[in-house]
Amino acid sequence: MNYRIVLYILGKVIIFLGLFLMLPFIVALVYREKVGIYFLIPAICAILIGLAVSYKKPKDRRFYAREGFVVVALSWIIMSIVGAIPFFISGEIPNMIDAVFEIASGFTTTGASILGRVEDLSNCMLFWRSFSHWIGGMGVIVFIMAIIPMAGGNNMHLLRAESSGSNVGKLVPKMKQTALILYGIYMTLTVIMFVCLAISGMPVFENICTTAGTAGTGGFGIYSDSIGSCTAAQQWIITIFMFIFGINFSFYYLLIFKKIGQALKMEEVRWYFILYITAIVLVTINIVDVIGNTGDAIRHSAFQVSSLMTTTGFSTIDYEVWPSFSKGILFLVMFLGGCAGSTAGGIKISRFIIGFKSLAKEVKKLIHPQRVKITKMDGKAISDDTTRMVCIYFLVYVVIYAFSFIIISVDNFDFETNFTAVAATINNIGPGFGGVGPTDNFALFSPLSKIVLTLDMLIGRLEIFPMLLLFMPSTWKNK
Amino acid sequence: MNYRIVLYILGKVIIFLGLFLMLPFIVALVYREKVGIYFLIPAICAILIGLAVSYKKPKDRRFYAREGFVVVALSWIIMSIVGAIPFFISGEIPNMIDAVFEIASGFTTTGASILGRVEDLSNCMLFWRSFSHWIGGMGVIVFIMAIIPMAGGNNMHLLRAESSGSNVGKLVPKMKQTALILYGIYMTLTVIMFVCLAISGMPVFENICTTAGTAGTGGFGIYSDSIGSCTAAQQWIITIFMFIFGINFSFYYLLIFKKIGQALKMEEVRWYFILYITAIVLVTINIVDVIGNTGDAIRHSAFQVSSLMTTTGFSTIDYEVWPSFSKGILFLVMFLGGCAGSTAGGIKISRFIIGFKSLAKEVKKLIHPQRVKITKMDGKAISDDTTRMVCIYFLVYVVIYAFSFIIISVDNFDFETNFTAVAATINNIGPGFGGVGPTDNFALFSPLSKIVLTLDMLIGRLEIFPMLLLFMPSTWKNK
Repeated sequence: MNYRIVLYILGKVIIFLGLFLMLPFIVALVYREKVGIYFLIPAICAILIGLAVSYKKPKDRRFYAREGFVVVALSWIIMSIVGAIPFFISGEIPNMIDAVFEIASGFTTTGASILGRVEDLSNCMLFWRSFSHWIGGMGVIVFIMAIIPMAGGNNMHLLRAESSGSNVGKLVPKMKQTALILYGIYMTLTVIMFVCLAISGMPVFENICTTAGTAGTGGFGIYSDSIGSCTAAQQWIITIFMFIFGINFSFYYLLIFKKIGQALKMEEVRWYFILYITAIVLVTINIVDVIGNTGDAIRHSAFQVSSLMTTTGFSTIDYEVWPSFSKGILFLVMFLGGCAGSTAGGIKISRFIIGFKSLAKEVKKLIHPQRVKITKMDGKAISDDTTRMVCIYFLVYVVIYAFSFIIISVDNFDFETNFTAVAATINNIGPGFGGVGPTDNFALFSPLSKIVLTLDMLIGRLEIFPMLLLFMPSTWKNK
Repeated sequence: MNYRIVLYILGKVIIFLGLFLMLPFIVALVYREKVGIYFLIPAICAILIGLAVSYKKPKDRRFYAREGFVVVALSWIIMSIVGAIPFFISGEIPNMIDAVFEIASGFTTTGASILGRVEDLSNCMLFWRSFSHWIGGMGVIVFIMAIIPMAGGNNMHLLRAESSGSNVGKLVPKMKQTALILYGIYMTLTVIMFVCLAISGMPVFENICTTAGTAGTGGFGIYSDSIGSCTAAQQWIITIFMFIFGINFSFYYLLIFKKIGQALKMEEVRWYFILYITAIVLVTINIVDVIGNTGDAIRHSAFQVSSLMTTTGFSTIDYEVWPSFSKGILFLVMFLGGCAGSTAGGIKISRFIIGFKSLAKEVKKLIHPQRVKITKMDGKAISDDTTRMVCIYFLVYVVIYAFSFIIISVDNFDFETNFTAVAATINNIGPGFGGVGPTDNFALFSPLSKIVLTLDMLIGRLEIFPMLLLFMPSTWKNK
């Protein structure tokens, strides 16, 4: 383990975290909120500590997958702790475990809250919650990469560890350029969404928070009823942008460079679209009697499927009163998630595609043992390594799920609450069903359960392996 | 596809099914029940049809994995339909879908029932339900193999398709001998259990049914309160034998041939034991306040963990009133299942061991890409093929689970009921939680849901692939 380079990059992360903390301070200045001071102090401390740690560039440039995973895992843990400080020292979230839960939920774009009434928070605090979604959506290290030159040779390992999906690749040969393009697309889409909501008449502050929460597929809102009090037009805008931010950003890259044919052939995007439309149609048919008219049924169905499939977690309505079939569909799309290389969480469509293709191959092998074919995705062969990692991913996912479920069961809530609380956090969604439904929050859980669910959010956002390696003794051995 | 040999073996299966149907007829004679005639007629028909179909040995002896899977899948479907006829034509279960559900539940050793009061059935019907567990536990084709010489070269494919676990091997070089040894061990353990229960004072008929239900890890009882009214000693005997029948039969084979060291080193058996004891201890500590005294808490905890982990499904108590933590543990052991090569269902401990070993290997590879080690189990290398099949198994399992869950959600029962109904059938357990708890039954579901759950039982018992191949068009193409 090259400790010096790990520390160096962590220092950079802390500096940027300090800079980000200045933004809610500015919001506080605008709204003349005194609690803004609680952002300024940690911001200055973070910048100073970060500068001290990353002052000297390390000479040893060795940087492998191991270092990449560790840097990313530690960065996110530090972000969750430092980011929670303003909530805690301002007294707006008087419990540190709750504060960490809340901001980890923000950075990981989960959107699960321990707050009963979000309206009680100051505007700067509300902004910080929502803005953390925007940062976490594409990743803070990817952001840093786009801005400053990073030490170390192989930054690919960093991008891999922080980005979502099983087959992250560079868009262009240079790492910095790739990061810039990703953030460029992200920023552009964010601005377009902001403009659309502004035209619809949404007030600026609400617009900023809602846009940030949608872009990162996070889900924190500034009202207790989430998006319920928005107009139908605004709900449609949010629906469409949730869908857009759940698409693999390579798709937009191909569109920009006029490789439209190639973009439309992306298997993951196609399946994403098919599954998305199928879910909306099934839910619409099922809820039309409950809602009363087809137009509203389509709107609520489209909104809720978008929200849970892209793992955003906004809601327009209490979907808990819907029939079991619709709730079942919503429950399943929570696991699908969006595309790899998007800001969405969940298991990701691409992992399912790879899994199914491997399955088809194995079954064909059983039937015709002589003929062996290569499995391909988007025309490229899927390596055995990728397949194996995807399979292993499913297994570890299930095991972590089971352990989390058992630990939070100690709080003695019902099966649905426990089972979907884990689903809502490990898939970075936000609300679940039962005691953690769209009209409820996570305050009911014990501190231990909150810690487990916080870890689940981080595990889900970083797609297991970085967090897993952090807890393996052999990661820390030299040679 | 070698249709002739498939038909030939199916004929043999139907003959034996006819012979098995004679046994409840004999029970009816003993108890002077007129409904016995409804066993005699189908029995004679089955034997005649079977003889007609398998009269001529096929010349073409080609028999590969494909044929093996198809024969096994079709055999089990035929057994479930023919086996249901006595229930249906006697009017004791007046609906054919219910009757098929009931006997498929028997053969697959699930033990899920659509009957509210089993006491209403005649003794011959009760016997048939319980006896079907015994036949299904080790497998009807394995039984036939042990008795008569089978046509076709490679019967290994048949044993593989019908036995449980991912790494079925022959115990001895000859197939027939392997089948004989397996049934020998099975029969011996069954007799020992019968004797133990007889000494405890259990009446003969109840003893036969309970023993058959335990040996096959099935779970059909002859009373509505399952094992609740048995004495504590009887409950302990059943607990111990559920545990015993959940162990890989290779373990007993090694014990018999005095390879005790080798037997005790079997990793799967060790983990089975460790997980079993851990679950019992955790549940006992958690329920001691609810039960009132430690002795009873240990007894009920041991019984229920044995019952659900070995996927038997008996119950001594309504465990639905236990705290969520205990219910959570019981829910998880439902998926673990017993050992490969036992009569237990579930995913099987060995699959988890293989999965975890592959995980450890992949993680080590991430940390130290240069060093590659071979993963071993019981000292033998685990082939890449085995690992891949295990991973694929997990994936298909989850997908079938999700689809079943969605389809039965249409009936609009609650999440816990739907989710655990699938768990209880695909893992061949019997009772679940909520509306399908130990004091409830599956009668509440619609015919469509019952068909789906019946298929889940068959898919679970045959471990997915035989049923999967049956529905693949390429299975049926010649070359």
